[in-house]
Amino acid sequence: MVNYPDGRKSTVSTVRVAAGRRGMELEKEINLTNDYYLSQDKAVIHKKPTPVTIVQVDYPARNKAKITEAYFKVPSTTDYNGIYRGKYIDFEAKECRSRTSFPLKSIHPHQLEHLKSVTRHGAVAFVIIRFIEYDETYLIDAMEMISRIASDARSSIPYSWFRDCGHLIPSTYLKPVDYLHTVDEVYFKENN
Amino acid sequence: MVNYPDGRKSTVSTVRVAAGRRGMELEKEINLTNDYYLSQDKAVIHKKPTPVTIVQVDYPARNKAKITEAYFKVPSTTDYNGIYRGKYIDFEAKECRSRTSFPLKSIHPHQLEHLKSVTRHGAVAFVIIRFIEYDETYLIDAMEMISRIASDARSSIPYSWFRDCGHLIPSTYLKPVDYLHTVDEVYFKENN
Repeated sequence: MVNYPDGRKSTVSTVRVAAGRRGMELEKEINLTNDYYLSQDKAVIHKKPTPVTIVQVDYPARNKAKITEAYFKVPSTTDYNGIYRGKYIDFEAKECRSRTSFPLKSIHPHQLEHLKSVTRHGAVAFVIIRFIEYDETYLIDAMEMISRIASDARSSIPYSWFRDCGHLIPSTYLKPVDYLHTVDEVYFKENN
Repeated sequence: MVNYPDGRKSTVSTVRVAAGRRGMELEKEINLTNDYYLSQDKAVIHKKPTPVTIVQVDYPARNKAKITEAYFKVPSTTDYNGIYRGKYIDFEAKECRSRTSFPLKSIHPHQLEHLKSVTRHGAVAFVIIRFIEYDETYLIDAMEMISRIASDARSSIPYSWFRDCGHLIPSTYLKPVDYLHTVDEVYFKENN
């Protein structure tokens, strides 16, 4: 921990809030990028709504339904899908706060199973992982990630592997996570 | 309305409950069919979660989040998408209680815009409409439906049009709404 020059310690709670805020950044930036792709008619890719189980709905006024009890569900698929260059696109996006490795518990086994299965059907399927501390966002082909997980019993993948096997996603003002640029390089090389 | 032989009128409320229950049937049957397709590795097609705006979340216990205030959002895309035969599949499903016509207010303009846009990118896009009273479920190509809507100022499409331009979807025990059978006929004729 870096202390102030006068010896005060920086408060942990501030750090937590900042990291928490940043925790939403990747999703927000991908959504902005998807909006831009849509506005340019480049691709139609959306984030799926967060799956919830709705238990109780009140109707305080005509035509106004208020959900008063609901719970988060474990997602059975990935967060994003859509169509690009006539191909079905499917991916999951995760942020990683560690400087050294990506913990596998961040991705549900269901989601890996889903990525495997859409790949078998001809999808362009991948994972986007952002290392917050390095401000680096990688695209990793789903099957490469799945093979890596199968080949090693550890519960995390070291950062160095992403540097070697991942593809760095560029960022611009209008396309904060321009992953289709990387998709073009990785999956459509011959057509470019 | 059909009355009992002794002259009593059948109660409207009973009819409403029955129709209400049936109102969920199409979604349930499509989900069952999708589960079957998935189990056979024929296609990976899922219903998207209902979009809600979450306002308040309580944590009554560690690791247990309870949503206590949320609202339904107008969907900006369709309910179902996925991959089949390497193609991106996208559709919306609606039930219709009228015997004479399908009211267009059942489908949001956003959803039609979405179907148009995925079609442009090479999707297999359609609408599934069930006429509850006839127990008939039709698949209609998205662009055919959109052209029909554009060609006529009326706020509904007559049932007869669905008989002429729609494709009746078969139903079996394991595949209550076997729409991929119809997709094969309509979109993959040459390959069959």
